Amino acid sequence: PSILDLAVIEGDGIGKEVVPQGLRALEAALEPAGVAVRTTDYDLGAGRWHRTGETLTDEDMAALAKHDAILLGAVGDPGVPSGVLERGLLLKLRFGFDHFVNLRPTRLVPGVSTPLAEPGEVDFLVVREGTEGPYVGNGGSMRTGTPLEVATEVSLNTAVGVERVVRYAFEQAEARRGKLTLVHKHNVLVHAGHLWRRIVEEVGAEHPGVEVDYAHVDAMMIYLVQDPSRFDVIVTDNLFGDIVTDLAGAIGGGIGLAASGNVNPTGAFPSMFEPVHGSAPDIAGQDKADPTATVLSVALLLDHLGHVEPAAAVRAAAENDLAARAADASLASRGTARIGDDLVAAITGR
Amino acid sequence: PSILDLAVIEGDGIGKEVVPQGLRALEAALEPAGVAVRTTDYDLGAGRWHRTGETLTDEDMAALAKHDAILLGAVGDPGVPSGVLERGLLLKLRFGFDHFVNLRPTRLVPGVSTPLAEPGEVDFLVVREGTEGPYVGNGGSMRTGTPLEVATEVSLNTAVGVERVVRYAFEQAEARRGKLTLVHKHNVLVHAGHLWRRIVEEVGAEHPGVEVDYAHVDAMMIYLVQDPSRFDVIVTDNLFGDIVTDLAGAIGGGIGLAASGNVNPTGAFPSMFEPVHGSAPDIAGQDKADPTATVLSVALLLDHLGHVEPAAAVRAAAENDLAARAADASLASRGTARIGDDLVAAITGR
Ligand SMILES: CC(C)[C@H](C(=O)O)[C@@H](O)C(=O)O
Ligand SMILES: CC(C)[C@H](C(=O)O)[C@@H](O)C(=O)O
Repeated sequence: PSILDLAVIEGDGIGKEVVPQGLRALEAALEPAGVAVRTTDYDLGAGRWHRTGETLTDEDMAALAKHDAILLGAVGDPGVPSGVLERGLLLKLRFGFDHFVNLRPTRLVPGVSTPLAEPGEVDFLVVREGTEGPYVGNGGSMRTGTPLEVATEVSLNTAVGVERVVRYAFEQAEARRGKLTLVHKHNVLVHAGHLWRRIVEEVGAEHPGVEVDYAHVDAMMIYLVQDPSRFDVIVTDNLFGDIVTDLAGAIGGGIGLAASGNVNPTGAFPSMFEPVHGSAPDIAGQDKADPTATVLSVALLLDHLGHVEPAAAVRAAAENDLAARAADASLASRGTARIGDDLVAAITGR
Repeated sequence: PSILDLAVIEGDGIGKEVVPQGLRALEAALEPAGVAVRTTDYDLGAGRWHRTGETLTDEDMAALAKHDAILLGAVGDPGVPSGVLERGLLLKLRFGFDHFVNLRPTRLVPGVSTPLAEPGEVDFLVVREGTEGPYVGNGGSMRTGTPLEVATEVSLNTAVGVERVVRYAFEQAEARRGKLTLVHKHNVLVHAGHLWRRIVEEVGAEHPGVEVDYAHVDAMMIYLVQDPSRFDVIVTDNLFGDIVTDLAGAIGGGIGLAASGNVNPTGAFPSMFEPVHGSAPDIAGQDKADPTATVLSVALLLDHLGHVEPAAAVRAAAENDLAARAADASLASRGTARIGDDLVAAITGR
């Protein structure tokens, strides 16, 4: 039987509860395909940092690099200073493994409640650049801590980096409904903005079947709230993607349902899949967390590794479960593990 | 009788329709106070650029600088390349007149429809920094137009610049409900983020009566959609403020109702007031534009110049008019000028 060799980073808080359910769904979906899952746990996150002061060592990176993919729960707790795990762990993984595609789908499943009055059919995919822009960590400060401090943050954007993610987004649009929207702020950030515009035009010329439009990131706030159904594929820079996808999450029924993939489509390094929500220390350890976002992230993982049917089975199970909650209020009281049971049952049909 | 010496930039498209109604409201409100309005028109915007190639000359700036305040409608049309009027006119005014406070209130008036399911009472004020951050125009590109292009955008932040706007925001919070929320992304943009955090802590220590909290800009998307009533004063950087205020506009009933002030609280230069919406070429010249955002911007102008009672009268007229629309559908068919008539009648009580 073939083997899927998975690195598992449960992380902190509810990460430790949702990841096991994600793994059960993964195993259940791959079983009919004759694929076994071999997991290796990596102790990374706030817990390890408190104990050892380490975030992610070179040895960790070298070991992680050998796996087919990585599943991550959530990292962080209120005792870790801002930036330590973000820059030292999450972004180090994204940059180190060249995860230039940050994939974030939003599908509003019938029955899922949204703060929007009456949304139409919502099904779009944000393709967020993952290795450039204001996230590169190229900033600094002088006269730090004084009344004369100056602090900078530099957004770095390369034609190579923009082109590879734009190309990926066009391919997704071809395979979906044939629409691509570039989100930027090229009327103010003229240099980075014009680079993005040029590349979208150039790659767009190779995809005449894809309809291309553009929205400034500020106007995008309004479009997403007022008419999210108009979007298919949205391609954008790292920071704008961070912001737009949280709004998308809220519109899609809450960040608690949002899945994501940090993907290196070349396969040169393992891609990493994670729910967008955090470690939620306030509800951790109480069997209260909803594993749906993790399970939907597992579906993205399966798609990425070419297991298209298992991916569809996992996604269908999660989406049907969400729809069922609208019809049957008693389902809302289920804990993390019980939701996992129900999803496994739906996937295996047992 | 005293004189308010106002520079008027109608600009393009619906700017030419909404500004005259704003001026009528201004005059009506100041009449009882014995203040006359003297206006000087400035021909700026897409129209002038098409005719002359000029955006904003040194002579324009020198002349504008002499007025008590500036009222601007909207500038732009699809024939002007991206960035020309933004950087060359709007941002040149904000930077040249050191408009370090960009004021954007959101009040959801009873009866105004919002895409949100059931919002509570919404009444918050975004204090957006106006002269720093990624808006400074400090970027560039090399190997431009080639496959090896690199483009940068530099966010510049100074303790002086952050402190003055944070101080202003705390004063607003003192005068309102005593809550201030800093919005940034200090877990990724660590240098600029830590500067903002430090200054908010320092100035906060001088305002023990103000409750301070913090939200990452991405999480802010969710909070604003799910529970906008929790906010009072929001202080944030130039780019985050641009994004957050458009979402706020959508939540407050649409960007068509959103007012703004580009304020220099020192009085060293005239402040500028403008509706947040654009020139809307698609409906221009048809008496279809809603002048409400302009009239609400006039209320901000009056407040800024210390005309507190006239400001309240203008705001009440506009808000009552919005509430009346919910009760009487026939009001929805009024044109720009008719709405102006009704607002003037409400302000003067005639
Ligand atoms: C935790 C943080 C570094 C991260 C980001 O900003 O990308 C998160 O907000 C996300 O969207 O995955
Ligand atoms: C037109 C543009 C330069 C401007 C900005 O980005 O500030 C606008 O979006 C606004 O919010 O006033």
